Amino acid sequence: MTETLADMGEFGLIRRIRELLEKEGIVTPGVSLGIGDDAAAFRPGEGVELLVTCDCMLEGRHYLREFITPLDLGRRAMAINISDIGAMGGKPLYALLSLGLRADTAVEDIEEMYRGFMEELNPFGASIIGGNITKTDHCPFTDVTLIGEAEKDKIMRRSTARAGDVVLVTGYPGQAAAGLRMLLEGKGGKDMKDHPLVRAYNRPSHRAREGHAIGRSGLATSMIDISDGLLGDLGHICEESGVGAELFEEKLPLSSHIINMQLGPGLNIYDLVMGDSDDYELIITCSHENIDRLRSVVAGVSDVPVSEVGSIIEYPKGIRLVSKDGTKRETRPSGWDHFKIKGGQDV
Amino acid sequence: MTETLADMGEFGLIRRIRELLEKEGIVTPGVSLGIGDDAAAFRPGEGVELLVTCDCMLEGRHYLREFITPLDLGRRAMAINISDIGAMGGKPLYALLSLGLRADTAVEDIEEMYRGFMEELNPFGASIIGGNITKTDHCPFTDVTLIGEAEKDKIMRRSTARAGDVVLVTGYPGQAAAGLRMLLEGKGGKDMKDHPLVRAYNRPSHRAREGHAIGRSGLATSMIDISDGLLGDLGHICEESGVGAELFEEKLPLSSHIINMQLGPGLNIYDLVMGDSDDYELIITCSHENIDRLRSVVAGVSDVPVSEVGSIIEYPKGIRLVSKDGTKRETRPSGWDHFKIKGGQDV
Repeated sequence: MTETLADMGEFGLIRRIRELLEKEGIVTPGVSLGIGDDAAAFRPGEGVELLVTCDCMLEGRHYLREFITPLDLGRRAMAINISDIGAMGGKPLYALLSLGLRADTAVEDIEEMYRGFMEELNPFGASIIGGNITKTDHCPFTDVTLIGEAEKDKIMRRSTARAGDVVLVTGYPGQAAAGLRMLLEGKGGKDMKDHPLVRAYNRPSHRAREGHAIGRSGLATSMIDISDGLLGDLGHICEESGVGAELFEEKLPLSSHIINMQLGPGLNIYDLVMGDSDDYELIITCSHENIDRLRSVVAGVSDVPVSEVGSIIEYPKGIRLVSKDGTKRETRPSGWDHFKIKGGQDV
Repeated sequence: MTETLADMGEFGLIRRIRELLEKEGIVTPGVSLGIGDDAAAFRPGEGVELLVTCDCMLEGRHYLREFITPLDLGRRAMAINISDIGAMGGKPLYALLSLGLRADTAVEDIEEMYRGFMEELNPFGASIIGGNITKTDHCPFTDVTLIGEAEKDKIMRRSTARAGDVVLVTGYPGQAAAGLRMLLEGKGGKDMKDHPLVRAYNRPSHRAREGHAIGRSGLATSMIDISDGLLGDLGHICEESGVGAELFEEKLPLSSHIINMQLGPGLNIYDLVMGDSDDYELIITCSHENIDRLRSVVAGVSDVPVSEVGSIIEYPKGIRLVSKDGTKRETRPSGWDHFKIKGGQDV
């Protein structure tokens, strides 16, 4: 019979998780006290800047239980936080997990979720040092707090883009949105979960190694990861930096998977690439003369493509889309949470 | 008309919160980047040990919406985390808030909750540096991550009690349990929320100043805060330290409010004082010769009473209750989450 959280109790589960972490986890240097006390403790390195982020994933809102394994759920919850640390130019060190779990959750599913967390953390030598488990009757959640570090004065912000900079993007934004669409429409048959676009949604890559390298290089002027879509997150850069941007449709990177995707009526491929999507790619701005050096820095840690897609302009916080035929459409970053390209309000 | 989260949107709310924090919050030294980027950033002090804890409060499980104001909810969520940092001998510095909110939540209620967070943080010069807001259809939650610091080698653990130590406790444990009981039984009439026992539940004090002073003094051997009740948390000390404990019923501190409370049939006053209760008092162990000095250290920062209630013994991880007539009952800390005194299993 499958053992559940109700059978084992919260303290029993915590013991089991401690054992699992000791066996399969990493001991990150600096940790003076891990799981099992009122708080975890660590000694920060010298001359570092510490980074902290937290992101919560709610069942039904940020993931669909029927479409994701507990292992992938763990990976995804951790990857999106690692992405945030990477987008600041840092590397992950310590994670705390606050989980809301139903009493009937199988203990082995919880262990699988922890394996997912560790699969993302271990390659960085990062570890789980604390957390909290809460029983919930309704909506399970996975709330990750991740602490990372960057060298002093090497953190990357979203508020420091300058007019004249170019806009670069890693990888192929929009793939996660396309994968989610496939899941929801039931396309792809029984092997759907192995489709590259579905994988892009369920098991997103982060670009933390690239982000950390870019931060250390000092070549970029600003950086953000894509969790609200290319337009949404470029909009955040514009708003926080007090600038505008021009995006060239013909320069947007299109993955072969997206090109080959059967689009529904009225759906434009660029809606996918620029619209709401959890891709965890990076948007980077830098001066024109640093493009090549920045590409070399990225090539030093991965083979992800870096595309030049636009430029930062002195334009009040808005984004101007330049079509292939030269037509310009204007939009501005208001109400990003409900942001739709087609609904974007002209300035 | 009351403005709700649905009217304002998540990003609108975040802007509003930033304004509120700038107006009524504190800027903690060391913060290089607060709310508004992928992660927050700060520079740790030299020669410190950093502490991190997270605790989640779920509506219906950890609090009852009809009985608590948004301001008190914010205070309570923050106080229980400050308590954890204090119980480690530290002081709070930076908080991150991950909130799950219903779309129909009034924006002014959310602001009140943030005022509650700040009321607890401001006196320490501590501040909110980041977080996350998620819409939830069901069960709202308030997940606080709190970062604190202690001097190097001055953190207090629960795993370092030694046989021969005395067991001390601050304040009057059990008051929160008594207040919760009053709320659930509807006793106390319309002014119930002002009853001292109800206040003890809804607006718990923490002992972080006392804990920090105790940690710096180096006089205690172990420390923990009471969130699972006196027996439950003394049990954690025993289990983690590999020792046992003796508790003397006649030495347990009884508040006048508890003494004057009308107890239901079959309910013993000691069930309240020792059983499940969220009091956020401290349990401290120290050697016999340090009791007076430790009391002076506490008296230096507050007037909370410190009672000697028992002693640590070489007894495998169990707790022995010594009644007024000298009778000894034995119990052991198994299944603390369902722990009940009457159900305590004899060893």
